[in-house]
Amino acid sequence: MPDLRKDPITGRWVIISTDRARRPADFTREAVVAQGSRYCPFCAGHESKTPPEVLAYRSSGGINGEGWSLRVVPNKFPALRVEGELDRQGEGLYDHMNGVGAHEVIIESPDHLASLATISDKQVADVFFAFRDRILDLQKDPRLRYVLVFKNHGAAAGASLEHPHSQLIALPVVPKRVQEELDGAMRYFQFRERCIFCDILQQELLTQDRIIFETDHFLVVAPYASRFPFETWIVPRKHHSHFALADAPTIHNLGWVMRTVLRKIDKALEYPPYNAIIHTAPVQDALLDHYHWHIEIIPKLTKVAGFEWGTGFYINPTPPEEAARFLREIGLP
Amino acid sequence: MPDLRKDPITGRWVIISTDRARRPADFTREAVVAQGSRYCPFCAGHESKTPPEVLAYRSSGGINGEGWSLRVVPNKFPALRVEGELDRQGEGLYDHMNGVGAHEVIIESPDHLASLATISDKQVADVFFAFRDRILDLQKDPRLRYVLVFKNHGAAAGASLEHPHSQLIALPVVPKRVQEELDGAMRYFQFRERCIFCDILQQELLTQDRIIFETDHFLVVAPYASRFPFETWIVPRKHHSHFALADAPTIHNLGWVMRTVLRKIDKALEYPPYNAIIHTAPVQDALLDHYHWHIEIIPKLTKVAGFEWGTGFYINPTPPEEAARFLREIGLP
Repeated sequence: MPDLRKDPITGRWVIISTDRARRPADFTREAVVAQGSRYCPFCAGHESKTPPEVLAYRSSGGINGEGWSLRVVPNKFPALRVEGELDRQGEGLYDHMNGVGAHEVIIESPDHLASLATISDKQVADVFFAFRDRILDLQKDPRLRYVLVFKNHGAAAGASLEHPHSQLIALPVVPKRVQEELDGAMRYFQFRERCIFCDILQQELLTQDRIIFETDHFLVVAPYASRFPFETWIVPRKHHSHFALADAPTIHNLGWVMRTVLRKIDKALEYPPYNAIIHTAPVQDALLDHYHWHIEIIPKLTKVAGFEWGTGFYINPTPPEEAARFLREIGLP
Repeated sequence: MPDLRKDPITGRWVIISTDRARRPADFTREAVVAQGSRYCPFCAGHESKTPPEVLAYRSSGGINGEGWSLRVVPNKFPALRVEGELDRQGEGLYDHMNGVGAHEVIIESPDHLASLATISDKQVADVFFAFRDRILDLQKDPRLRYVLVFKNHGAAAGASLEHPHSQLIALPVVPKRVQEELDGAMRYFQFRERCIFCDILQQELLTQDRIIFETDHFLVVAPYASRFPFETWIVPRKHHSHFALADAPTIHNLGWVMRTVLRKIDKALEYPPYNAIIHTAPVQDALLDHYHWHIEIIPKLTKVAGFEWGTGFYINPTPPEEAARFLREIGLP
């Protein structure tokens, strides 16, 4: 019998096909293997092909030159622009405003052929330090209400360049899906006076069957109402609403955790495309007792069709318990 | 300057890139061209390869035999099953229930190489008559709260078989995205005492720049806050909350309208994959003054990435005014 499960935060229902569960080998693979390119604007030596950097980690050398291990540059084709006023206006019954915001690219390594699974733990941690630095800087601008940090890995997941990179979009509004998550967590808090994510962690620790692995700082779990096969969440054990306020020991550990998750996913699913997103509180909000930042990783194994678009109702052919067991048992050298 | 537009029904914000708008020729095409197959279970003569039909239109001949112009059969690999009780239960803080429901396939033509754009207007109308017949039958089961009707055209849009078909999933819950649309429409109704869709129709008729074409029964528009390039809505002029209560003249006209939209889209965008979804009120609800059924068609021209998943916040590179002008100007023989 298929199982209908409700996401406790958003109230979204998901069909989990328990009858004919799909294991990793059942998915068509589009392995993400970088081909290399002489013309990549993100490669070392091509610094002049990007807009001037807004942040870089380098041990020596000048701004916008070589010698960096990580660079952050404005997106050359930004979805939003920093200049100008929001200028909210009506248009009959419609509402609009100017697309004020920021759109930046985090170049995760000078090596075109690298990935977050192949660079060092320290280098992955640096990527998260860069996200933190950029969010803390952008949130000084009171027009910006939310900073979305995400990674599209592989063309099938929406990446237009294969050089390893993440993106950051600072928005003048809190996106609807984020607000829904905040509202859902608030409803639970009003009822229980506890953070729903903290309660989820406790229940997962009790049952163990959806835990992939854990460290002193993080739990890595397949969520109960996973929308997608092998959907994986990295949740800090300690309650905190804002990713950008994570301390250095946490971020160092996150580097190891993220890389370990991705190495397991690469091994289990043969280098799949994926999307990763940091879910965090709106930047202008004070600390929230009811919200808990975390990272969601979604390997792209199935095609999302009209059904999902139209309804926000997902059919997941792999129960999260099986996905977790599979990833848990993947050994890494 | 990019334009941030708010969907008046759901409150979803969308970035419309007005600066470097993408025209039809700018999208990579994956033209949907049926290859044909000797082993297709949906083809005429292969009736025994599907589960027994629940509905068929045929001028002569027996049940489950040849001579049909349209068949509805249960999905061989259903996401939900008709048998059993819902059996709602808690599991710690989680909620689940049995996957009770129905999952059916509407085989739109006996001809493997046909599409909704190439069959006759009458045959397209028959597809909508079949949807209506099946919804009216399924809604007799009080366990079923929503019937979702959708079509995935082409592998990139999620179709696993190329023979022309649509699907129907009857659910024991109202999906979250549907409920959001109902709630948004209700908020507007409480404020204005008018249906928001009726008001949108009026405003679109006034400004004209997002109208693709119109008939006595329908307006075909590119919505103000289109999430996707060439997103197209078919909206009945007359207020009605339930698709399944549309009368025969309306459905006959809908056959022509749907086919005309798809022919225009095929010509403008060179046979793109697409998803189409009927948005309608929950089947057990009485007539609703605040909700208005309609059809949403989304050509699949861009890859949806982590940004969209994580936030429900879309970046649309083609302003709907340009998409509408383009589709309006497409001439059909």
